[in-house]
Amino acid sequence: MKSTAIANSNIALVKYWGKRDEKLILPTNSSISMTLDKLHTTTTVEFSPSLKEDQIKIDGKKILGEEAKRVSQHLGLVRKMKGENLFARVESENNFPKAAGLASSASAFAALSLAATKAIGFALSRRELSILARQGSGSASRSIQGGYNEWMKGTKEDGSDSYSKQIAPQSHWQELRMLVTVLTTKEKKVKSRAGMAQTVANSPLYKAWLETVEKDLETVRSSILEKSLFRLGPCAELNALKMHSTMMTTQPHIMYWEPESIAMMKEVMQMREDGISAYFTMDGGPQVKILCLENDAKKIQKRASELKGVEKTILCSAGEDAKTIEKGLF
Amino acid sequence: MKSTAIANSNIALVKYWGKRDEKLILPTNSSISMTLDKLHTTTTVEFSPSLKEDQIKIDGKKILGEEAKRVSQHLGLVRKMKGENLFARVESENNFPKAAGLASSASAFAALSLAATKAIGFALSRRELSILARQGSGSASRSIQGGYNEWMKGTKEDGSDSYSKQIAPQSHWQELRMLVTVLTTKEKKVKSRAGMAQTVANSPLYKAWLETVEKDLETVRSSILEKSLFRLGPCAELNALKMHSTMMTTQPHIMYWEPESIAMMKEVMQMREDGISAYFTMDGGPQVKILCLENDAKKIQKRASELKGVEKTILCSAGEDAKTIEKGLF
Repeated sequence: MKSTAIANSNIALVKYWGKRDEKLILPTNSSISMTLDKLHTTTTVEFSPSLKEDQIKIDGKKILGEEAKRVSQHLGLVRKMKGENLFARVESENNFPKAAGLASSASAFAALSLAATKAIGFALSRRELSILARQGSGSASRSIQGGYNEWMKGTKEDGSDSYSKQIAPQSHWQELRMLVTVLTTKEKKVKSRAGMAQTVANSPLYKAWLETVEKDLETVRSSILEKSLFRLGPCAELNALKMHSTMMTTQPHIMYWEPESIAMMKEVMQMREDGISAYFTMDGGPQVKILCLENDAKKIQKRASELKGVEKTILCSAGEDAKTIEKGLF
Repeated sequence: MKSTAIANSNIALVKYWGKRDEKLILPTNSSISMTLDKLHTTTTVEFSPSLKEDQIKIDGKKILGEEAKRVSQHLGLVRKMKGENLFARVESENNFPKAAGLASSASAFAALSLAATKAIGFALSRRELSILARQGSGSASRSIQGGYNEWMKGTKEDGSDSYSKQIAPQSHWQELRMLVTVLTTKEKKVKSRAGMAQTVANSPLYKAWLETVEKDLETVRSSILEKSLFRLGPCAELNALKMHSTMMTTQPHIMYWEPESIAMMKEVMQMREDGISAYFTMDGGPQVKILCLENDAKKIQKRASELKGVEKTILCSAGEDAKTIEKGLF
């Protein structure tokens, strides 16, 4: 009745921003991401007849309120599959700051889905795990498999065709790197979930964003398969800017960018003027992630680190599949 | 054959961004602006048969190259009206930094149009002056009259119906203020002219921007007439964010925002959370301008001044009409 799983975070190259079904977490558009080998969540789940409620710890701290409810609801899906009303002890550890735009909910709900189903006695397929993880956090559907994944929006009302498919495994593109620059680790003011609902509801640019996504998906998918940073980078960068444009033009505005974010994006643009192939992306938080190739990575990391306000930089490659491990957290 | 004119700069509340005719400077959309009493250009023009070419000084410096050509071309329009090929000595002074997003070309070409036509012996109507100034710099058409002006895009190919009409004079709204925060006075990398051409050509959000402008014009026009900052502020702020979204999503991206700009925009959003009515706007440069009422102006100016990287702040009211003055620069 106990299992531990580890899953990598992932960063979208074609962003997910907006739901067509809030409850089942079905997106308005498909998305593509790269898993990151250096950012992961480890989660141990133990179901026990002696518990009267779920007990949840994240990064050593007992969790209550909304956050606990979200985890318990996810465990509820697993309990429902089994048809047993067992409560669980859950401990989860991130090796990076959560709720700061580093997709902590992606790795968290992927690891939780895998650990909880194993603990209760199921061995789900990758597809089933992706569908389950999706219901905890949309982007978690893309953290079940390693490498590069496309979360297909699907068309069915029950969400059974909305899951992630691997475009290419971890080993596919050995040279690609994503440098994560951590600029501030304050938890963000507007969580992604609230932010995207508001954007869909009232950004005057949202429709225009949606209209361009299909083409971006084609470009990013094929450029990953061809291992062409020259095609991938500009498309991923523009995709991120389009998404942030829709956020900033909602009311009240959602502005995840901090002064340090602007400085870093401009530094990346300057790197290109200096002949270095580097492209940025940003998510629901202030951090800037830089796509580049192994050969340039050290040089880029040095320049990025020297910018004012940079707490640290983490050089990542594509990550591996989510998996269960022996050593539990308790 | 000599005349001196003074004209105020203006800041758009519904932005002009994109031309339907590059040569005549005819815009893709109408725009509305507020003239600013504290930012102005003074220009003396003297036509003289003894000159073999135009001699142009701006802020005490002799101007050559592209910038001189642009002034000479504008003088050419005046020469053509007169049918005489006289060259001119021109001296112009800004009381604020040029090419840093403070609409220096607006006040410059308005003052030049008025001084040059007077010097050569014409007394043009406001409408004719606006059309002439427009051909030097689009936004200059809005600096001929004081107060609040709407530059009507017009539909005619010759541009004869594309000029600015005063919505309300300087005296109309005594309480309104615009606080100009000067964050950096480096000349900008991408001039407005090049930036807008690129945006029209390739921003995936440009069409969506255009589709929302008519409604913004109605809101801004009526809220000025009603003297309602509560309606004017949010619409002007969103309009600016939409315009910057179209710029940032062109390739290569046009990013006029500096780290200090983000900090100031967020400070304004925070002021509102603190119960202060303040709204920002931004143009083709890093400066942030804050709309507010007289009662709050000192408090807002103090908070804005305390932010890191603020060179100075200038508290403006609506400006008066462009006019000729006795005292020349030479």
